[in-house]
Amino acid sequence: MDTLTREQTEAMTGAEARAHFRAGLRVPTVDWASRYAQTNLISVPKDVAYDLLLFAQRNPKACPVLDVTDPGSPTTVLAEGADLRTDLPAYYIWRDGVMVEEVTDATEHWRDDLVTFVIGCSYTFERGLLDAGVPLRHHELGVTDPMWAVNIECRPAGRLSGPLVVGMRPIPAHLVATAVQVTARYPSVHGAPVHIGDPAALGITDLQKPDFGDPVPVGDDIPVFWACGVTTQAAVIASKLEFAITHSPGYMFITDVPDATYAL
Amino acid sequence: MDTLTREQTEAMTGAEARAHFRAGLRVPTVDWASRYAQTNLISVPKDVAYDLLLFAQRNPKACPVLDVTDPGSPTTVLAEGADLRTDLPAYYIWRDGVMVEEVTDATEHWRDDLVTFVIGCSYTFERGLLDAGVPLRHHELGVTDPMWAVNIECRPAGRLSGPLVVGMRPIPAHLVATAVQVTARYPSVHGAPVHIGDPAALGITDLQKPDFGDPVPVGDDIPVFWACGVTTQAAVIASKLEFAITHSPGYMFITDVPDATYAL
Repeated sequence: MDTLTREQTEAMTGAEARAHFRAGLRVPTVDWASRYAQTNLISVPKDVAYDLLLFAQRNPKACPVLDVTDPGSPTTVLAEGADLRTDLPAYYIWRDGVMVEEVTDATEHWRDDLVTFVIGCSYTFERGLLDAGVPLRHHELGVTDPMWAVNIECRPAGRLSGPLVVGMRPIPAHLVATAVQVTARYPSVHGAPVHIGDPAALGITDLQKPDFGDPVPVGDDIPVFWACGVTTQAAVIASKLEFAITHSPGYMFITDVPDATYAL
Repeated sequence: MDTLTREQTEAMTGAEARAHFRAGLRVPTVDWASRYAQTNLISVPKDVAYDLLLFAQRNPKACPVLDVTDPGSPTTVLAEGADLRTDLPAYYIWRDGVMVEEVTDATEHWRDDLVTFVIGCSYTFERGLLDAGVPLRHHELGVTDPMWAVNIECRPAGRLSGPLVVGMRPIPAHLVATAVQVTARYPSVHGAPVHIGDPAALGITDLQKPDFGDPVPVGDDIPVFWACGVTTQAAVIASKLEFAITHSPGYMFITDVPDATYAL
């Protein structure tokens, strides 16, 4: 395949981007289909689906549920014709809370009893931030935003517990208030930040060593932290969940839903 | 008990109001504890709890879940010291989708396998409407707002399906836009209206004959319709659910959470 330019990948629809990933392309989705909502994905056996749905309800900033499939179904109302087993650029396969394999096609790991949760992602409000003049450093670098499992415990549900995961964006000080106001308008895709300006208060000791994603220089900016859907993966780890399939952090599912749909 | 004035009931905290209802007082909650969030309530057996949680996720305008209890538990994080079996002024007991009894104390019907859902109520944004100068006719009359099961089907989940239920408030034409803007700021308690101005389009033939609640004259106002948590009761009926306990429409659970908490 010829190399695609950023202009080309950003201009795609969700369906066009998914076709590339279905064909096997493995790249972070940060600069893809920039008008369409990207999401986290987690598939768990039916017998733990209630606990996960309740965990999401009890931790809605981190785990805003946009769709839940019927058991075994690889389709979602959010993307016509999409196959959730193949249409993400990369998946993690989890056993007993350990990530045992990264794959670009999850078909051979799929099971008839898997219930798949499509969970909102903060990428959805990034167009809103850029339109408001807020620079996004990880976009400038073409990398995934850095994420940490922090010292705030989620409210448990049944077998599931674990720490909150946050994503960080460095924001110029005079634009922090703007960033709060813009993202607050997107409550179903993480909404306003959970923390601003003090990484140590969250237990983060080195902003250049994220738990997930890529390091992004902060410079004179203020580090601003939003709740992140990777919180579900931290719960898989902390709860030693028997089996799960998730997206690889930064390698998201891209829907057909315009980002603006989730703005108030 | 001495008769309480509207000023007295409106000024109460949630805990003060609940104490009256726990003692057996059976009144609509429209003019009670006006600074605190009121909610819908539905308790179902554990084996249908996943279907109900999924039904709520798939129909979030009508069924915004604010808390879910552990099986058998009569307590909620939303109201310290509250007993969900006794602290509402009136309950409906449902068997096979039929309301078989109305009680002021649900203790004798409680079961160890009941999971209770606390679901947002549009009363939570009424203070916001009043503060913005939007008159509320059912408050002026001291009655419950009128509600209808309409011709819009909810998205089903497992064993649960049924029609959307809406509540109607007559709004002066020049204030309809204000009412939309104010209520849109409360997405977790039904948010913006689902329909404005055309009852026939919803299949409503007589605005003076509601399916639930009380009739309220419309006069020269515009009828504005918001999604309503009584949708869960319509699902109990349509799905012929074996057993459920709910609040009586208009006789809500009052929490300790200030209304303003749910405003963006």
